Amino acid sequence: MPYLILVRHGKTNWNVEGRYQGKMDIPLNEEGLSQANKVAQALREFDIKAIYTSPLSRALETAKKIAFYHPNATLHILEDLKEIDHGKWEGKLAVEIEKEYPQLYKNWKTNPSQVQMPEGESLGDVFNRAKNALDEILSLHKEKDIVCLVSHDATLKAIMCYILNLPLDYFWSFKFSNCSISFLYISKDKSFKIIYTLNTTCHLGKIVDFEIQKAL
Amino acid sequence: MPYLILVRHGKTNWNVEGRYQGKMDIPLNEEGLSQANKVAQALREFDIKAIYTSPLSRALETAKKIAFYHPNATLHILEDLKEIDHGKWEGKLAVEIEKEYPQLYKNWKTNPSQVQMPEGESLGDVFNRAKNALDEILSLHKEKDIVCLVSHDATLKAIMCYILNLPLDYFWSFKFSNCSISFLYISKDKSFKIIYTLNTTCHLGKIVDFEIQKAL
Repeated sequence: MPYLILVRHGKTNWNVEGRYQGKMDIPLNEEGLSQANKVAQALREFDIKAIYTSPLSRALETAKKIAFYHPNATLHILEDLKEIDHGKWEGKLAVEIEKEYPQLYKNWKTNPSQVQMPEGESLGDVFNRAKNALDEILSLHKEKDIVCLVSHDATLKAIMCYILNLPLDYFWSFKFSNCSISFLYISKDKSFKIIYTLNTTCHLGKIVDFEIQKAL
Repeated sequence: MPYLILVRHGKTNWNVEGRYQGKMDIPLNEEGLSQANKVAQALREFDIKAIYTSPLSRALETAKKIAFYHPNATLHILEDLKEIDHGKWEGKLAVEIEKEYPQLYKNWKTNPSQVQMPEGESLGDVFNRAKNALDEILSLHKEKDIVCLVSHDATLKAIMCYILNLPLDYFWSFKFSNCSISFLYISKDKSFKIIYTLNTTCHLGKIVDFEIQKAL
């Protein structure tokens, strides 16, 4: 393709409380809506041809804010851009999970590629979905098109592992702050990639986002 | 360690003209000095313990601007943070090199790990130096120290390959704009790394820096 803008959805109350969300459809909170407006403003300058978003409302609402300033861009909902299905972890706090699933939680933090979420997905499942989504998007666009993907923390981390051919245990090496912007180039045959910038948050007032996410 | 801030030096006249600089000591131009002031301002908020810089004046002058706001930080000159020695390419424009060294130039763009600069260094040489510098810095600092490295395009790209265990042919996948900020964490045993942000240029007025560098 083209140039690829990766955006993580804005903040929700569950992000603030530190509850695992996964496939649960938790809406943006007031701060999340404000972040979505800010990322939309920041992306106004780019000639975005298409926006691909997860169907979950926190992503979809963020994508719609971006789409507002790009009336000629097409908006597509892709199931494959959904967050990891955290299964029985969903709705719980990290401290609760650490207590109920001590070994699994430890593995998630240290060897995430080996973890199967109870009644949910593995990271391999997410990787395969993310790869499908990216490959589909690549096939639809020409060189120099700029496309925007609005998705979720785990899904975007998996996309970075795919783009850099990194093992999934590099999952924790990437950070995606709510409504951050990452800008990449991928050649159509996928042999050549450029990271222009990763997890830029200046439009949200932070040069570096150190805020600790509680549910990861 | 600690947290690692990577900064590329400010702009020089040779950057503007597109002349390969390598070990040549070309000073910051007016825009470069302004960029150095801006990156220094942007980094004021961080409690930087030490600044490590290449001895070349374009890096050293940038480092001194940063040091100005951190009177308690120590400033160290590390030879290993110098730019790649481009040998006989130095002082020449990309178009001249493409004419004089067509195959080598093509290899540099497509298989950079295989290139030996005429009477200069290979990327492997730069990688080894960069690795030495980073390992030395890691050994000197404790967890949670914030240290700043001021260096050059090829050297910073080699550092990223080292940090992510990527083959040197991923060299071109990284971008370091003049006076950009990248913020990383590396655990003291080097088993765990986090990229907080890469090539942030908002403090220079650009969310994404698309400017084509001519001498790469």
